[in-house]
Amino acid sequence: MSVRRLPLLDWGRSYSRENLSGDLVAALVVTIMLIPQGMAYAMLAGLPPQAGLYGAILPLLIYALLGSSSALAVGPVAVVALMTAATAGSIAEIGTPGYHLAALWIALISGALMLVMGLFRLGFVANFLSHPVISGFITAAGILIAASQIRHLLGIQTTGKTLPEVIPSIVANIGGVNWPTLVMSALVLAFLFWSRKGLAPALRALGLGAGAATLLARGGLFVAVLVSTLAVWLLGLDAQGLRIVGDIPRGLPPLELPAFDVDLITYLLLPSALIALVGYVESISIAQTLAAKRRQSINPDRELVALGAANLGAGLVQAMPVTGGLSRSIVNFDAGAQTPAAGAFTALMIAAALLALTPLLYFLPNATLAAIIIVAVLSLLDFRALPRAWAYSRADGAAMAATMAVTLLWGVEQGLAAGVGLSLVLHLYRTSRPHVAEVGQVPGTGHFRNINRYEVVTTPEVVTLRVDESLYFPNARYLEELVQSKIAENTALKHLVLMFSAVNEVDASALESLEMIQAKLRDAGVRLHLSEVKGPVMDRLRRSDFLEHLDGLYLTQLDAMEALAPALTRATLERTRHEVRKPGA
Amino acid sequence: MSVRRLPLLDWGRSYSRENLSGDLVAALVVTIMLIPQGMAYAMLAGLPPQAGLYGAILPLLIYALLGSSSALAVGPVAVVALMTAATAGSIAEIGTPGYHLAALWIALISGALMLVMGLFRLGFVANFLSHPVISGFITAAGILIAASQIRHLLGIQTTGKTLPEVIPSIVANIGGVNWPTLVMSALVLAFLFWSRKGLAPALRALGLGAGAATLLARGGLFVAVLVSTLAVWLLGLDAQGLRIVGDIPRGLPPLELPAFDVDLITYLLLPSALIALVGYVESISIAQTLAAKRRQSINPDRELVALGAANLGAGLVQAMPVTGGLSRSIVNFDAGAQTPAAGAFTALMIAAALLALTPLLYFLPNATLAAIIIVAVLSLLDFRALPRAWAYSRADGAAMAATMAVTLLWGVEQGLAAGVGLSLVLHLYRTSRPHVAEVGQVPGTGHFRNINRYEVVTTPEVVTLRVDESLYFPNARYLEELVQSKIAENTALKHLVLMFSAVNEVDASALESLEMIQAKLRDAGVRLHLSEVKGPVMDRLRRSDFLEHLDGLYLTQLDAMEALAPALTRATLERTRHEVRKPGA
Repeated sequence: MSVRRLPLLDWGRSYSRENLSGDLVAALVVTIMLIPQGMAYAMLAGLPPQAGLYGAILPLLIYALLGSSSALAVGPVAVVALMTAATAGSIAEIGTPGYHLAALWIALISGALMLVMGLFRLGFVANFLSHPVISGFITAAGILIAASQIRHLLGIQTTGKTLPEVIPSIVANIGGVNWPTLVMSALVLAFLFWSRKGLAPALRALGLGAGAATLLARGGLFVAVLVSTLAVWLLGLDAQGLRIVGDIPRGLPPLELPAFDVDLITYLLLPSALIALVGYVESISIAQTLAAKRRQSINPDRELVALGAANLGAGLVQAMPVTGGLSRSIVNFDAGAQTPAAGAFTALMIAAALLALTPLLYFLPNATLAAIIIVAVLSLLDFRALPRAWAYSRADGAAMAATMAVTLLWGVEQGLAAGVGLSLVLHLYRTSRPHVAEVGQVPGTGHFRNINRYEVVTTPEVVTLRVDESLYFPNARYLEELVQSKIAENTALKHLVLMFSAVNEVDASALESLEMIQAKLRDAGVRLHLSEVKGPVMDRLRRSDFLEHLDGLYLTQLDAMEALAPALTRATLERTRHEVRKPGA
Repeated sequence: MSVRRLPLLDWGRSYSRENLSGDLVAALVVTIMLIPQGMAYAMLAGLPPQAGLYGAILPLLIYALLGSSSALAVGPVAVVALMTAATAGSIAEIGTPGYHLAALWIALISGALMLVMGLFRLGFVANFLSHPVISGFITAAGILIAASQIRHLLGIQTTGKTLPEVIPSIVANIGGVNWPTLVMSALVLAFLFWSRKGLAPALRALGLGAGAATLLARGGLFVAVLVSTLAVWLLGLDAQGLRIVGDIPRGLPPLELPAFDVDLITYLLLPSALIALVGYVESISIAQTLAAKRRQSINPDRELVALGAANLGAGLVQAMPVTGGLSRSIVNFDAGAQTPAAGAFTALMIAAALLALTPLLYFLPNATLAAIIIVAVLSLLDFRALPRAWAYSRADGAAMAATMAVTLLWGVEQGLAAGVGLSLVLHLYRTSRPHVAEVGQVPGTGHFRNINRYEVVTTPEVVTLRVDESLYFPNARYLEELVQSKIAENTALKHLVLMFSAVNEVDASALESLEMIQAKLRDAGVRLHLSEVKGPVMDRLRRSDFLEHLDGLYLTQLDAMEALAPALTRATLERTRHEVRKPGA
């Protein structure tokens, strides 16, 4: 698969009537979820509700054109909305034009970064985010998102972005709770919780088929929106202090580049890169998981291009940043989406809703949107991941705990940066001390084994070190220090053999270390030899003059020992030739 | 060797008269170099000359007490002086109290960081600096240092820190050249260049022994200082616009903590960490090289503690940051320094000079100090390192070129950060795509080899992938994608065997990838098996429930094939049992 070939050309050519009906049903179900979710995530991002709906039109059309996943449902998602709010909120007050401008540039910059990374096939940088870091980050982000919605559930004002700011602010303002809002929140939350598990069986009990019941149960959101909006309208709850969505401009957004501001763009570069990274990692995981179920394959670089272009589109139509969302993608897949056209149909349905239905959303309570967000993010929380990671590996557990703690207590960008930084440092720490075994000859054989684990023969004049790792800059100095201590502790040493059977790479740092080792050994009157060097490593070493100054180079370790300690080798071969090998030896 | 045990207790107990005489001679030679160099590097750092001399007293005494190298000459060095100037200059105008305060806090913070890193045995973070990055950085820093001294050689004023700033500034101000300064610079430079190679032979021609001639030739600096100072005094050149050192306060500096400023300290944290890193890496390389010549050993963490404490001392006595310097350490070693006491003697001699000799330095020309700096940094320049690194490995060459270019064109901190960042990204890139070979059975044997390189037998129903790298977060996703494409391209696939003979680690990210692979394979109706899993990896995997859901786990790959494709295995064993093995096969 080429990044440059449009996936559309592959699936478009064989598009069938079955594809069409599957895609249309899936699009309808996703649209019903996406209208309230888009508005809810826009609220979470601190943007007007239409920013979420706009993010469900052009970006989806672009992804349908460029993307390779048949099931991925692109659009506004909770974690990216939270990150957008955190970054835009550090620049301007929520609700100001500067805030909205920052959000648009976040979409444009993160889109441009993804696009460039995809075109230059740099998708591997997503590897910076280890599983424990992304998992800890998502859980912490979910907690922050839920905490940020409590004010909408209670109808109070709060300030702050992190737990130490939000929680005292809730406590301080709890007296101002708006009772109609609280009752509405409780009812909607209770209904949504029940509908996740209870709606489908209830519909089946009413006589629906299992498939239809499962599909219709996805409409729980729609019911909550409809009933709560009607309740506000009929009971005049907005006059009693219950906050509602209000006016949404009817019609489609204009296509325009937001105001250009070099300082703003420079400031947003790093946060947007983090948002792009999180958005991409989330999206690709979902796309690959769903593709595997149909034995399809996803091209990561092409996904980057598609998501990048979708976000560029979002920034041009006053929409919030988008990516592939977990819950809607699963619904899309289950509802039978066959091709990326399902996303295009979703976009058209959302556009139709914007042209016709916005007046109906006027009385929709913010509390309902907050309840929708809370129910959605509960699926993000995975509290058992931390003890599991810790039990499996201390390093992974520590990286995850640091990510979660810093995210909750300090902020989302800081948390992610701390996690990435700590994983890199711990990774470096682990690889900086590779396993190096001093080996000796297993008597009577050509095998050489760790002197600490096997009965082997050695001589103090020849020491062989087997390096069980590629040699590159994280561990280059370690070998130097190890050899240094071998020279210092063994004054009888005359020959040092480095056995390279497990060395797959020797980079320039390691080459300099080897040259340093060579020089140190020469100063100390010890000769340096290599054995069992792999082909690619030999090719690399031949590009330097290291081999010319080497005292000895042997194809096998046995060759080395026969040359350097012939008496020893012959003696042990002799001695053991007459012995019967022990069973199991 | 313990970090906590004082090295002094080891060498102090057996201190002999031979040690004393060696240390005293070395101290005298180093002192003669250190007085002009200390003043010159203070000028380079933008500090008063005494800051360099103060940096050669208390820090040296502290290092003598705590350090483990018998030859390392600690004190002001050029690269650290340049980095100090770059950082302090970004805060305050040179010559202001704020500038000097920043320099003192750089010493204190970098000292504290080194101390903490040493006590917590975190010396491995120095591995972040690969050889090509540090080498490129030192060469670029040397060029910047030389460029920054041209104004002193010409007696003009210039501005700027980077080449694109300094060079136009020199060109613009070249008209204001001070001729006495230029003549003085030319003569001193010519003498210093000649004395590096020509002085020792000349002294031997005068009848001195070879050893004494070599030692005395080190006094070239001293001769330049003496003669140029006398010339200024006798000819009254300072009245003709030649700039001189002027008043140096007589006596020792008071011990006092600089004014505390939280914002300043926060700002200096990252630059000071970079300075600490560069200082440490430079120093440890020198110490280890010299220790190897005597078959001694250096404890990196103890060196961090000693250098950290020395810098804390520097910050408390109004001195500039210090580290181990290359040229003086070599001189110290060659002159016969036997123990760290040589450093203590140097400190006492510098202190004596500060008490008695400062009036004699009044007429010392800045031009002489600039010439001393230029001659010293020439030894830092290594222009052939870049083509050598590039020829050896594109990745290393690119990291080095980026470090040099960014340092010269943008700044020292940025250059170092760019180099470190790029090496990490390239390292990640290389390890993110490990070699994975599909293997098949070598007919008639229990050996399994790459299907692309050997004549082996396979069956489409069983695919075995041999992973030639440990599995951790940089490459976790790669294996997932690879398996994904294997599922997609081979519809006959029923069993996938991952051969783990070269896998030394499976971290939590890789474990999640394996679980994801397992889930995807199950969705696609393929069974997952592992073979040849190493002991430590098995121990780790047993901490998760991955093995419980695994379809098969085999000690050897032959066991796996006999279980999964018995007909095939038996057939090939049968078929080849009667064949004669080819020679060399």
